[in-house]
Amino acid sequence: MNNQNTNAVPPDLLDVVIVGAGISGLHAARLLRPDFRIAVLEARERVGGRLCNHRFANGETVDIGGQWVGPGQDRMYRLIGELGFETWPLYDSGDNLLWDGTRGRRYRGTIPRIGPLALLDLGQAMARFERMAKSIDPATPWTHPRAQEWDRQTLATWLQRNCKTRRARELFAIGIGAVFAAEPEELSLLHALFYARSGHSLERLLSVTGGAQQDRIHGGTAGLCTRMAMELGDDLHLNAPVHSVEREPEGNLQVHFEGGVLRCRRLILALPPNQALRIRFSPALPASRDQLWQRMPAGSCIKCVARYERPFWRDQGLSGQVTSAEGPVRVMFDNSEAGRDSGLLMGFLEGETARHYSGVDPEERRRDVLDCFARYFGEQARRPLEYVDRDWSSEPWSRGCYAALMPPGVWTHYGETLRGDDAPIHYAGTESATEWYGYMEGALQAAERAAGEIREALRYSVDSTSLMQRRTREVPRV
Amino acid sequence: MNNQNTNAVPPDLLDVVIVGAGISGLHAARLLRPDFRIAVLEARERVGGRLCNHRFANGETVDIGGQWVGPGQDRMYRLIGELGFETWPLYDSGDNLLWDGTRGRRYRGTIPRIGPLALLDLGQAMARFERMAKSIDPATPWTHPRAQEWDRQTLATWLQRNCKTRRARELFAIGIGAVFAAEPEELSLLHALFYARSGHSLERLLSVTGGAQQDRIHGGTAGLCTRMAMELGDDLHLNAPVHSVEREPEGNLQVHFEGGVLRCRRLILALPPNQALRIRFSPALPASRDQLWQRMPAGSCIKCVARYERPFWRDQGLSGQVTSAEGPVRVMFDNSEAGRDSGLLMGFLEGETARHYSGVDPEERRRDVLDCFARYFGEQARRPLEYVDRDWSSEPWSRGCYAALMPPGVWTHYGETLRGDDAPIHYAGTESATEWYGYMEGALQAAERAAGEIREALRYSVDSTSLMQRRTREVPRV
Repeated sequence: MNNQNTNAVPPDLLDVVIVGAGISGLHAARLLRPDFRIAVLEARERVGGRLCNHRFANGETVDIGGQWVGPGQDRMYRLIGELGFETWPLYDSGDNLLWDGTRGRRYRGTIPRIGPLALLDLGQAMARFERMAKSIDPATPWTHPRAQEWDRQTLATWLQRNCKTRRARELFAIGIGAVFAAEPEELSLLHALFYARSGHSLERLLSVTGGAQQDRIHGGTAGLCTRMAMELGDDLHLNAPVHSVEREPEGNLQVHFEGGVLRCRRLILALPPNQALRIRFSPALPASRDQLWQRMPAGSCIKCVARYERPFWRDQGLSGQVTSAEGPVRVMFDNSEAGRDSGLLMGFLEGETARHYSGVDPEERRRDVLDCFARYFGEQARRPLEYVDRDWSSEPWSRGCYAALMPPGVWTHYGETLRGDDAPIHYAGTESATEWYGYMEGALQAAERAAGEIREALRYSVDSTSLMQRRTREVPRV
Repeated sequence: MNNQNTNAVPPDLLDVVIVGAGISGLHAARLLRPDFRIAVLEARERVGGRLCNHRFANGETVDIGGQWVGPGQDRMYRLIGELGFETWPLYDSGDNLLWDGTRGRRYRGTIPRIGPLALLDLGQAMARFERMAKSIDPATPWTHPRAQEWDRQTLATWLQRNCKTRRARELFAIGIGAVFAAEPEELSLLHALFYARSGHSLERLLSVTGGAQQDRIHGGTAGLCTRMAMELGDDLHLNAPVHSVEREPEGNLQVHFEGGVLRCRRLILALPPNQALRIRFSPALPASRDQLWQRMPAGSCIKCVARYERPFWRDQGLSGQVTSAEGPVRVMFDNSEAGRDSGLLMGFLEGETARHYSGVDPEERRRDVLDCFARYFGEQARRPLEYVDRDWSSEPWSRGCYAALMPPGVWTHYGETLRGDDAPIHYAGTESATEWYGYMEGALQAAERAAGEIREALRYSVDSTSLMQRRTREVPRV
């Protein structure tokens, strides 16, 4: 790895520069590097982006960013295997808890035990949502016959109309919070439907076993990224935030970053939209691209983890999973790593709650979160060996999690822009994925698409200088 | 004016640096300069921001950006007077045209002649909207008893429910397009209500005589800015885009711009949110500020002006004002300057239409716009002496017009952040105004508030070094 970045004179012409060493940028690099001269620029002092390990005092690590893989995410399981990593299933035995303000009720599966009317109501609303989602083509949501109608309203408006009981609406909203790290009014109905469809179904996004929360990775999701980064050697530049990109008269690009400049024929931006927006382009990007990025804010999430000597809640037959109408922590999981003694409880602060706790003193935040843990799992939960949380909205190079979300009108007005490139600039990152948008799987799918665009473009290129410089291999693969 | 910006070593400590020489930044400078050491940094090679003059071949100029002032905008009329400028009323005689696809109907006033049912429907919806708007405190829209309900839905949802006839909905939407340069689904209902309230009423925002489109300024609104800039002399730096702001250990700020750095005790950002977002702050701004800016995209507008030998439409008793259900130009005005021979017709491409025409070849855009002009005013309108248009979404230092808009959920989740500062960083610009948000008047009001915050802060400052450096005057005024 290259931490110097002291080159001031425009260097040789690379084939591809990739901005962002999250899992999407690293995957694109991995796909292109055998056949092209590439470099990866990363703003942080580490790789992984929204994937990050926290190391506890006892040496154990935990994912403090994105952490789960599940069925249907074939690229992820393939990558995990290729890199020699192993998964384990999240602890999903025993009873889940539904907290309704005064007490916890035990239940199993995805849908909590609530009164029969509310249950029927919730079931009907979810079934209706799933049917609508299923009818969407995730590659082109704006072409759906009802796209206009669905993109004109917020998910909150739809919930108001389609859940008759307050209870069902509340539970639906908790699910939405867990999936989007946002409130229902922040989302276009069409976006919520697309998002569910791009990850198969809402049911799958909400589920543990058989769903998007099924498996964890030993060594952490950030471990995957570190392994991919090692393959890159000096082609990876850390501490290298890109501030501007300039096109030379002949069409090549100069990528200016803190401490240096690289020249390339093609560029991949593997960044969340709110970060891509902060790079200055000369000539300026098309209006539609800039205005699209202005309309893709990131969700709001603080991830909180407490480490205990052992997972004591399991003794009481509890799974560690909580759904609570009462905050601040509304969703919890048993985050303990298989094969270790420590018990880890993990809770999310999401949407409006995350916004509030972003501005709160860290000690107060810790206290309020552990208050919640203790309410759900008893006094023992109030005194962990260690506690850590991460406010992703405060991270300068992410500024929100899990992913960018679409307010009303964005898909129907800017959908085609999102799906295109601005050659020689191409887009990766989970926000440009058609499958599993917002997930690591989407990040890989987007990287593969972007790498394919670049292969296509450079294969037919007649720039002989660069062709000569290029490492020669037999047949380009994607 | 200082076009050099070649200073590389941190210079003396200024009291205030103002970023952005639009009318808000320039007004703040004007207020503070008598008593403090200030500098203004402007990214463009000109001042004015979203205010800009276009010079025709015959030497006449026209506002190609913001242009109108009207009753209730007392600060603007005062400034116009102080700077020695004069206004004239927009040509508002004769009949307006309502175009319904096959023919134009003539009407007078703000509301076109439509069928009695649609008219009743539109009237009722507008009255309901006005009543709701009137009940809002524009300083704190999120405290309204129904704020949550109104911020959970789009204006489109509200229109769907409150206009029974398609015709009324269509006309309401054209009005919204003219006021916001956006589609109804892009706006939170609460934001639309706040916006109308902050400029008195929707009726006033839509009206010519007695409304926000009443008066123009000889010499252009940009002329005001140029005059204000002349007062600044070397304290104004053009071609000086700010890329980062760093806080020194003692709390002063270093403002890094292309070609130099300035040091100051206080900073005013007089920028649209989408531009402020692109500056890098160290330490990072609070999460709530960054996430707020991510959620305040700019509207979409292309302003089109054609110059003719004379205002020939007046001969037919036409005002030059058009409301059309058919695009691309849905709203038009007679933009001729009083006392000149030329006739100017001006039309807006707004919202979705602006997005489309942003990506279209300029020749095709001109042709389609003039097709529209000819449809409304006859063949003579197809052959102007000159034609000019400006796509504000393509302007790198604006990236949209007229102002930033709030999707659902932003006011209720981030309203308090919008109304606060991050001392020593303060906010001006029309998007931080409580009165006439989105208008020049709002830009002045915000500047006065920001200047007041700074006076307050620096008055009680104990930094004696800076006090000694400060130009001494008697009593600080705002």
